[in-house]
Amino acid sequence: MQEKTKYSLNSKAVAEATEIWLTKRGVTKEAIAELVYFLQKDYFPQLTQEECIVNVEAVLSKREVQNAVLTGIQLDMLAEEGKLLPPLQEMIQHDEGLYGCDEILALSIVNVYGSIGFTNFGYVDKLKPGILVKLNSKADGEIHTFLDDIVGAIAASAASRIAHRKQAEREASGDVPLR
Amino acid sequence: MQEKTKYSLNSKAVAEATEIWLTKRGVTKEAIAELVYFLQKDYFPQLTQEECIVNVEAVLSKREVQNAVLTGIQLDMLAEEGKLLPPLQEMIQHDEGLYGCDEILALSIVNVYGSIGFTNFGYVDKLKPGILVKLNSKADGEIHTFLDDIVGAIAASAASRIAHRKQAEREASGDVPLR
Amino acid sequence: MQEKTKYSLNSKAVAEATEIWLTKRGVTKEAIAELVYFLQKDYFPQLTQEECIVNVEAVLSKREVQNAVLTGIQLDMLAEEGKLLPPLQEMIQHDEGLYGCDEILALSIVNVYGSIGFTNFGYVDKLKPGILVKLNSKADGEIHTFLDDIVGAIAASAASRIAHRKQAEREASGDVPLR
Amino acid sequence: MQEKTKYSLNSKAVAEATEIWLTKRGVTKEAIAELVYFLQKDYFPQLTQEECIVNVEAVLSKREVQNAVLTGIQLDMLAEEGKLLPPLQEMIQHDEGLYGCDEILALSIVNVYGSIGFTNFGYVDKLKPGILVKLNSKADGEIHTFLDDIVGAIAASAASRIAHRKQAEREASGDVPLR
Repeated sequence: MQEKTKYSLNSKAVAEATEIWLTKRGVTKEAIAELVYFLQKDYFPQLTQEECIVNVEAVLSKREVQNAVLTGIQLDMLAEEGKLLPPLQEMIQHDEGLYGCDEILALSIVNVYGSIGFTNFGYVDKLKPGILVKLNSKADGEIHTFLDDIVGAIAASAASRIAHRKQAEREASGDVPLR
Repeated sequence: MQEKTKYSLNSKAVAEATEIWLTKRGVTKEAIAELVYFLQKDYFPQLTQEECIVNVEAVLSKREVQNAVLTGIQLDMLAEEGKLLPPLQEMIQHDEGLYGCDEILALSIVNVYGSIGFTNFGYVDKLKPGILVKLNSKADGEIHTFLDDIVGAIAASAASRIAHRKQAEREASGDVPLR
Repeated sequence: MQEKTKYSLNSKAVAEATEIWLTKRGVTKEAIAELVYFLQKDYFPQLTQEECIVNVEAVLSKREVQNAVLTGIQLDMLAEEGKLLPPLQEMIQHDEGLYGCDEILALSIVNVYGSIGFTNFGYVDKLKPGILVKLNSKADGEIHTFLDDIVGAIAASAASRIAHRKQAEREASGDVPLR
Repeated sequence: MQEKTKYSLNSKAVAEATEIWLTKRGVTKEAIAELVYFLQKDYFPQLTQEECIVNVEAVLSKREVQNAVLTGIQLDMLAEEGKLLPPLQEMIQHDEGLYGCDEILALSIVNVYGSIGFTNFGYVDKLKPGILVKLNSKADGEIHTFLDDIVGAIAASAASRIAHRKQAEREASGDVPLR
């Protein structure tokens, strides 16, 4: 006789699934890190690609971010398989301009690192640099209505995290006038 | 030879689907209106159930609200059918406390009627009066992880809408001192 | 014997103050409408400056928007007069990058017209076209830390409103396939 | 000849001002911790007052939180002194129901610890337990229109933080089934 397993959240499983699903959907940490570099290079000329990756990883370690990534990718995949009910199926499939739940989930990611990330999120979401062009190409029937915005949000969050860290470094090094 | 129909949003279809899906999932406008009455009766003793329904209908006519309703119900239904990938399946199925995408979608509804609705949303979400108890009972294997929060958000939004309208009525009737 | 006047909100006074304060701070509806045109001209080539103004006026008629405008301008003015306490005075005066309450108030404006406005808000906030350059110039000791973001948010909201209206027009004209 | 000091953010000064201003306005960490205990005691019966304080301190160490605290208290104080322009002065002075910028700033605090805090924020904001009654009493001409909501938001955020930590502890102790 099989006993019903009591539910209990397994955080490691959630974190691992986030990493696996992102990879399966064609999004590497390196690709997100490039967006971060694009956003921050003018403010911090010494910024390295490695630092960008470290900050992307830190953002991805947050539960709230993992939840949004998994939920968004799940909806994209179901839309790809045509398994959503109309008219939701059509709105997500065609990345309908008046459908904003993708931006909503993306913003929940940005919020974790504070409001200074809103600007960067909107900027990359409009310009679509790097990996974002590819996610938007709709090549081979792929649908990335949610992932597109989510990747921009992770990059904007990592950029905010870097801005906070750089300030802390500057202050720790004594490069701040006493008042 | 069949031509591929060009995609074009059909707003009426989205509005109708919202109404149909809510009904199918056991949520009537009357039940939401009762939550609104619960929230506002102390502030507006003359408030009628009919007024509450009118305001719920106004909230439901907003595109942003319809998008959130359809997306949330879709995820609930897929979770009920066990069609989501683990660990998302388990988190939504068990209304995991650390999973917050349901609150995120709900908040996007509240936002449309402004920040004064946050308090009412949190209040009914905690107390679970009326229809919200039923949605939370998990009876017969039903899953309403998203709908639960969404219904609370619609009620909170209708309450905000009433507060704005009542003020306008008061001012139109001249019951405001000149300054 | 003077009786203490009972407080009662005067909505007309709030709406008028919003218009007056914006004008005093150098922001005309026409200047905001130009930002709207910049954001939407590629999507709606027939769009006129007059339509943009009408939509800006509609956004400005919302209470939530008026509250954010008045609160933001008030803080800018107090900072200009040096009347805020340190370190808040310094953060607002220098538009400190890690201070995000200006973006927070701006987002509360965008939210009223839904999440599809986030992208446009971030975009103009980064590019600073038209009136936004002037607000950022810090010429003559003027401080527009809040107003800068608020004006971008009003423009993004008006752009969202236009997107919703244009869809409604298209559907009313029968230019949508039946399904 | 005096040189103009170049502006540079001093994070320590911001953190210290936050602590000092809260104390001056009658809000101790202990009082906020009591709200946290009120919110979480049913879920975590072993929870101690000390743990609540530690979590309140962690929330208060976040820049985004400090910015909202300082901005909100500043507006409260200026309203107390009658130094805001009408009609903003009257709206903040009377904690006008249709003025929602206080909830906006509060929500920016809650957001940092994710959407699971919305419910707790709304709940304490409605019930007004502990210190929140006092902040709302308007005794002696004190105005706490912003601080009231901000304190509720800090408590809700600390409650979210505890929920995340407790889950991590449970998993670290092996009290989670392998899957």
